[in-house]
Amino acid sequence: MISVTRGLTGRRPIAMCWSSGIQAEAVMNALQNLLENRKFEWFITIIIAVNAVTLGLETVPAAITHFGPVLYFIDRLILWIFVAELAAKIAVYRQNFVKDPWRIFDFVVVGIALLPTTGSLSVLRALRILRVLRLVSMVPSLRRVVGGLMSALPGMGSIVLLLGLVFYVFSVMATKLYGAAFPEWFGSIPASAYSLFQIMTLESWSMGIVRPVMEVFPLSWAFFVPFIIATSFTVLNLFIGIIVSAMQAEHEAEASADREALQSEQEMILGEIKALRADIAELKKQQAG
Amino acid sequence: MISVTRGLTGRRPIAMCWSSGIQAEAVMNALQNLLENRKFEWFITIIIAVNAVTLGLETVPAAITHFGPVLYFIDRLILWIFVAELAAKIAVYRQNFVKDPWRIFDFVVVGIALLPTTGSLSVLRALRILRVLRLVSMVPSLRRVVGGLMSALPGMGSIVLLLGLVFYVFSVMATKLYGAAFPEWFGSIPASAYSLFQIMTLESWSMGIVRPVMEVFPLSWAFFVPFIIATSFTVLNLFIGIIVSAMQAEHEAEASADREALQSEQEMILGEIKALRADIAELKKQQAG
Amino acid sequence: MISVTRGLTGRRPIAMCWSSGIQAEAVMNALQNLLENRKFEWFITIIIAVNAVTLGLETVPAAITHFGPVLYFIDRLILWIFVAELAAKIAVYRQNFVKDPWRIFDFVVVGIALLPTTGSLSVLRALRILRVLRLVSMVPSLRRVVGGLMSALPGMGSIVLLLGLVFYVFSVMATKLYGAAFPEWFGSIPASAYSLFQIMTLESWSMGIVRPVMEVFPLSWAFFVPFIIATSFTVLNLFIGIIVSAMQAEHEAEASADREALQSEQEMILGEIKALRADIAELKKQQAG
Amino acid sequence: MISVTRGLTGRRPIAMCWSSGIQAEAVMNALQNLLENRKFEWFITIIIAVNAVTLGLETVPAAITHFGPVLYFIDRLILWIFVAELAAKIAVYRQNFVKDPWRIFDFVVVGIALLPTTGSLSVLRALRILRVLRLVSMVPSLRRVVGGLMSALPGMGSIVLLLGLVFYVFSVMATKLYGAAFPEWFGSIPASAYSLFQIMTLESWSMGIVRPVMEVFPLSWAFFVPFIIATSFTVLNLFIGIIVSAMQAEHEAEASADREALQSEQEMILGEIKALRADIAELKKQQAG
Repeated sequence: MISVTRGLTGRRPIAMCWSSGIQAEAVMNALQNLLENRKFEWFITIIIAVNAVTLGLETVPAAITHFGPVLYFIDRLILWIFVAELAAKIAVYRQNFVKDPWRIFDFVVVGIALLPTTGSLSVLRALRILRVLRLVSMVPSLRRVVGGLMSALPGMGSIVLLLGLVFYVFSVMATKLYGAAFPEWFGSIPASAYSLFQIMTLESWSMGIVRPVMEVFPLSWAFFVPFIIATSFTVLNLFIGIIVSAMQAEHEAEASADREALQSEQEMILGEIKALRADIAELKKQQAG
Repeated sequence: MISVTRGLTGRRPIAMCWSSGIQAEAVMNALQNLLENRKFEWFITIIIAVNAVTLGLETVPAAITHFGPVLYFIDRLILWIFVAELAAKIAVYRQNFVKDPWRIFDFVVVGIALLPTTGSLSVLRALRILRVLRLVSMVPSLRRVVGGLMSALPGMGSIVLLLGLVFYVFSVMATKLYGAAFPEWFGSIPASAYSLFQIMTLESWSMGIVRPVMEVFPLSWAFFVPFIIATSFTVLNLFIGIIVSAMQAEHEAEASADREALQSEQEMILGEIKALRADIAELKKQQAG
Repeated sequence: MISVTRGLTGRRPIAMCWSSGIQAEAVMNALQNLLENRKFEWFITIIIAVNAVTLGLETVPAAITHFGPVLYFIDRLILWIFVAELAAKIAVYRQNFVKDPWRIFDFVVVGIALLPTTGSLSVLRALRILRVLRLVSMVPSLRRVVGGLMSALPGMGSIVLLLGLVFYVFSVMATKLYGAAFPEWFGSIPASAYSLFQIMTLESWSMGIVRPVMEVFPLSWAFFVPFIIATSFTVLNLFIGIIVSAMQAEHEAEASADREALQSEQEMILGEIKALRADIAELKKQQAG
Repeated sequence: MISVTRGLTGRRPIAMCWSSGIQAEAVMNALQNLLENRKFEWFITIIIAVNAVTLGLETVPAAITHFGPVLYFIDRLILWIFVAELAAKIAVYRQNFVKDPWRIFDFVVVGIALLPTTGSLSVLRALRILRVLRLVSMVPSLRRVVGGLMSALPGMGSIVLLLGLVFYVFSVMATKLYGAAFPEWFGSIPASAYSLFQIMTLESWSMGIVRPVMEVFPLSWAFFVPFIIATSFTVLNLFIGIIVSAMQAEHEAEASADREALQSEQEMILGEIKALRADIAELKKQQAG
């Protein structure tokens, strides 16, 4: 039985597939009020901070031996609070749930903790700390900073694609040229890509990699030095692009405010002059009459 | 006995709790004149520079053997001059003393020299050289530079908090994932945080840490490479924020001067046009009359 | 027999030296239509992407043993498609072929694959992957990014020349001073230039090179530290030059749009005032008459 | 006998102390014409380039064995040309000679080659290549670039002083704290300053220095990590200062041109309005009369 709620004033109608009429609507309404309550958000923020501490303490052997069961109990408890919160959000927002990327992020980091952590997946236990990153979605100033960083990404698309292409081409070349002699560094395309990333960050590029390679292939500097210059120059341009667009945004807002102030005054002048012409036209008529 | 001084022309009244009336007031007055005298500031500046040299010479064994007692005597003497200066400042400025952060800084660096330097606190002897940083508070151009650096900090709050959060989350993960196999680097959260700071600065990150780790955990690059990219990108944005706000400040001052010049001229035009309309209104009346 | 085509509407006339009249002209026409067709460009782009994959697979031993002949066949096939495409372009654009630097780039990277790869030239086999860089000339957004990077180069001419001069002078000096004691690092001018490049990138400059040199020549820090400061400062200025000119270009476009908007309004005001003066002149005449 | 030349039209008068009258004046005149001749400058530029090649060849053993005497002869010859050129410049410009810093630079680098190169001064032989830097003073575009770099220095004075102070204070502290345990790195103030410079450039700071130190002094990260953050932040601000002032200069020129264009038009509008008022005043008088 399906009923579409219309009564939620100021909110998008929510389709309810599993409850009957007015009663379910009231529950949803109360739930949404709770979820969007400032105090509830504070409660969740504090819960996350407490979880950050308990997850940190789990790495301290002394804490495990003394308070192990307590820590695990708190961790379990907090996990179920998160699960309940997310379930409530899914119930309330339904198809709108996926529209906010922060909610998807919350869903993923909480979901990780519910996966089985036995066998080869035991590494997932370490990922439980990612839950603490939910703080970013709870604290508005952090949310704004991360949003700002993310908004810089799309403009970087072409240059990141170019960098990827350069990496692929140089990785294939390095594998073909030096793969046989230096299998650890250039034995396969992924190994070469990793080594080239290391070289791009300038870490031990010469003493650690290029000098040993040059002992076998004396001209290999002609491969690595241009790679360093090209990728440094490209990454630099990536940075410049971000700087310029950041300043652009700042400057534009300010400049347009300036321009508007000047223009509004110019329009006032224009209005005055037009009134003047009207005065004179009247004067002329008066005189003629 | 408490008397409130009112006679200090142009200065805030100072409460005096430990002296009697006019006489004490005159002493305070003279003391303040001395402390705010340009020549006294020069004297203190020179004293600091001399102390910088003597503290430097104390690290030279030959200087110790030949002039040891002299150096220590000068150091003691200068210390007592500083103590006397600070005591005078506290007596003069009283509750206002703590309002200038530079005076608090002076108080701390001089105070360090008065602490006992025996036993486990012997490291404090090395901190006596911090006194030389008082030069920053004495030389106006240095004071301005440091003030400028400090003023950039508050705007960085959110991004520093984000960076701290990222460090904590990655430190806990690294400790859980690699702590058992590489206790020296990732044995505890502080050890991991230090190693991750080293990796963020790109020092020996690959040859020194990630390659050895990859021999045990072949997929660990998927942990470290994203960490490097994320923190580089965040720190870059920290820098861009500082650059943009620095340029903003410079540009705003200049642009507003420009705008004001244009606007004042526009207002002159507007005034002229209004005078014109008044002229014409008069003309109309004249004609009608 | 030579005939100059004039009929190609909207295109530059093409001289044809090896075919007879109208028929050849029609063939050229059809060929040019094909080459400039959007779908043909997509076809070539896909071919390049496929080639990128096959050339990558050639570095995987398992792929060679299972699909070796297939991979080589695809590679040959794609090479001949590229050769045919280039031959068609040369036939159509003839002397204009060299005017587009991207076509010259295509010609070189395809030409490499046609060179004999036996003996000492076997290294050229590894360069076949450069063909994948043709993607840059096919994808407009990549083409624009690379064009932007290239356009920043001419303004850097003087500073690159200066950096080259500094490198030459320091290389000669390093060879004379430290060549005898450290032949591996400073044995010849090219070796010194490479070592100084490594030092400029700050890779192992101290632990790897300068500290060992200082054990023989204690004052050698007075050679290397100024070199690091001077080249860092010069490279920084190179970057600043690029940043400033990038912002300049952005800002100029925007500012001139602003200025024009203000000026056009000012001209409107001026026009109104002139019309006003004409009105008054008429009024005066009317009154006098 | 002293005579002051007045006849050199458009040039500063030159006092001649060692020649008699008109004749000497004519010689000086001719010499100055020669020195300021475009062709003579080209000749010197080519001579410098030739010298760069010969000085480079002197580092190649094969070149020495085959052409040694020829190379030395060319070097001697060019040196004497430079000496003659400088002597002529001193004779012509006399007290004005020292006013151009480039001429002082030329004087120093040529003078180095005239010093005795025996014994402990044999290192000066290696400095002869500095002569090649004279190219910077001969090629206008290089001269402009270096002039630009130099002009950025004075604004950096305070921040360089601050950096120097920080280095001194941390060097003294490091010497006192770690000098006894790690004499090679922190045995004296200069040794500590060098090690701290290495740490500031982030070269092997952790693996090479701080980790070994932390094995003896576990809390030493609390000394080095703040040092890295403080100096990075200061150097960053140094860079930002240079970037901002570079953009400032560019932007100011442009903005003032814009502003002037707008203002001149505003003044035209004002002029028109004033003419209008004069018209109306006349009209009023006409009517009243």
